[in-house]
Amino acid sequence: MLEVKDINEAGLSNDLVFGNKSFAGHEEVVFCYDKKTGLKAIIAIHDTTLGPALGGTRMWMYKSEAEALNDVLRLSRGMTFKAAITGLELGGGKAVIIGDARKDKTPDLFRKYGEFIDSLKGRYITAEDVGTSTSDMVYVHERTKFVTGLPESMGGSGDPSPVTAYGVYMGMKASAMERWGDDSLRGKKIAVQGVGHVGENLVKYVTEEGAKVYISDINKEQLEAVSKKYGAEIVSPDAVYDLDIDIYAPCALGATLNTEHIGRLKCAIVAGAANNQLADENIHGKMVTDKGILYAPDFLINAGGLINVYSEIKGYNREASLEQAKNIYTTTLEIFKKAKLENLTTAAAARMLAEERLLAARKA
Amino acid sequence: MLEVKDINEAGLSNDLVFGNKSFAGHEEVVFCYDKKTGLKAIIAIHDTTLGPALGGTRMWMYKSEAEALNDVLRLSRGMTFKAAITGLELGGGKAVIIGDARKDKTPDLFRKYGEFIDSLKGRYITAEDVGTSTSDMVYVHERTKFVTGLPESMGGSGDPSPVTAYGVYMGMKASAMERWGDDSLRGKKIAVQGVGHVGENLVKYVTEEGAKVYISDINKEQLEAVSKKYGAEIVSPDAVYDLDIDIYAPCALGATLNTEHIGRLKCAIVAGAANNQLADENIHGKMVTDKGILYAPDFLINAGGLINVYSEIKGYNREASLEQAKNIYTTTLEIFKKAKLENLTTAAAARMLAEERLLAARKA
Repeated sequence: MLEVKDINEAGLSNDLVFGNKSFAGHEEVVFCYDKKTGLKAIIAIHDTTLGPALGGTRMWMYKSEAEALNDVLRLSRGMTFKAAITGLELGGGKAVIIGDARKDKTPDLFRKYGEFIDSLKGRYITAEDVGTSTSDMVYVHERTKFVTGLPESMGGSGDPSPVTAYGVYMGMKASAMERWGDDSLRGKKIAVQGVGHVGENLVKYVTEEGAKVYISDINKEQLEAVSKKYGAEIVSPDAVYDLDIDIYAPCALGATLNTEHIGRLKCAIVAGAANNQLADENIHGKMVTDKGILYAPDFLINAGGLINVYSEIKGYNREASLEQAKNIYTTTLEIFKKAKLENLTTAAAARMLAEERLLAARKA
Repeated sequence: MLEVKDINEAGLSNDLVFGNKSFAGHEEVVFCYDKKTGLKAIIAIHDTTLGPALGGTRMWMYKSEAEALNDVLRLSRGMTFKAAITGLELGGGKAVIIGDARKDKTPDLFRKYGEFIDSLKGRYITAEDVGTSTSDMVYVHERTKFVTGLPESMGGSGDPSPVTAYGVYMGMKASAMERWGDDSLRGKKIAVQGVGHVGENLVKYVTEEGAKVYISDINKEQLEAVSKKYGAEIVSPDAVYDLDIDIYAPCALGATLNTEHIGRLKCAIVAGAANNQLADENIHGKMVTDKGILYAPDFLINAGGLINVYSEIKGYNREASLEQAKNIYTTTLEIFKKAKLENLTTAAAARMLAEERLLAARKA
């Protein structure tokens, strides 16, 4: 089982890679450099027990290599858990390109990056992520088939947001079932924080079911468009924490479940699409539970995007992706049951289920 | 051209990999970990312009990852220069396994390591090195064809020492030609420091040609056996630096050409098999030249071992390897000529020739 003790298990002083505090038993970490294109990338392959390591490529102007490495290691490990709990035949991996996404991108940089990915023979499959787009992936795809999330015009699965939103919607309904013995969202007051592609689609689903929806976003134009389209009530991003609501759905920033916000929240359920909602998984996972709020673990209910690109690998079919995202409902209920039975927070129960699946696969 | 400015060219603070002081434009650095076998390896691929990166796997109980990384980066870069100057269609690479070669070796560790090498699809080819043996490579070979220097019993090229010694002998004769206008070693007084596999073979060659040979070694048994076999005179390892001789052949330790030793040396030529003979390439390369000693660059004249494993890749033929090692004679003369023409130390001239070949290949 991957436990906290895995960290630093390599037994070296806390430096570089094997001894990094975020190493957590990664199988392989590849530093790729190309002088001509200026490419500096780190590909992290955390675990391939269940299948090839899939995870997007983030492009970011990291302040140091240490920061880039820490980010890629944490994200890569998270992908292992996400794939395992979703029941996909995928391992966990992630990559970062150190650079400014606004000015350092060139077709040749992504082509060269594609060559490095290809040299891993499918142990790692990439996709777009923060700072990269499906159009960047087109250049990657010129050099390797191990890239997914390509534009629809190229036979890819295109924008995964509708599927991600559908998965979150399923997780939210399962939470309603757990809390109120009825999964209907009719009449429930739901605050959706962040109405980008995913958030907007979530607003659509819950509005169609008759919920009363509050929305916030720092992008005023998008906020007003969504409000107009679905009749949702606009609130300021910070006001979300003080609203008298049933469900809080963080769909933008991570780490919004911190000590201050949990103290202010007046809701029965937290279920949203944002990554890493708990500022500290242990501390705030417990704090939210102690306050009597039911938390639907983010990496479980936001897996629709992963399901969608996984489907692309297998031969894309949007209906099949939505069908698989529907399973998030069942898994979410399973997690809630496990949390009660084993007296765990829901976040810990989700992590443990993922670990159990990995352990079973390793033994098989 | 690979120059000192390449170091830190990645432009990040001097940490981890890209910003490491020894990074020197490496194409790829792979950190490999396997929990089950305890494998912790770093594979460094410096440059594949001329062909696949070939370099041995060193197993060593490094005090820190930083030490291991620094070692593998320096050695890997050195392999690029060695292959380039020798005219082989090979790039430069190297690998280190962090562990105690006396007690951490298992067949499964080397098998797992072989899987990682195989996943690089031939961009890196390994071989034995300090701390590993041809028998370890047999386990590596169970998982990948990208390993060379296998035992003769497996159709490999076996012990490369005779070819290495022959190359050093050729470099020594070229040095004699340069210095005395005659490449005969008859009657020359030659001190061979270290009479292991390579040193002993060198003693054989120069004895057969009629040189007067002095030998030293910390292994007394081997020393006496070689003395008896070839009639060589035994001296203490340190006495070598004060002997009134023609040629000093360091064939054991590196960095023997330091300020103190150069001050004491009474010889016309230094030509030996040891790696990294100059304690500091710039400082001591100049010091030895200023003293009027002709220095045959180590990475040029000790390339016989590399030639031998290269031959194994192409379909092994010992005669062809010896024939290619003979070319070291010509290249050594070429280096001396270049050094005079461009007013460089011989070490700098050798480095520059290697860089010119790389540059030409990159432009082609």
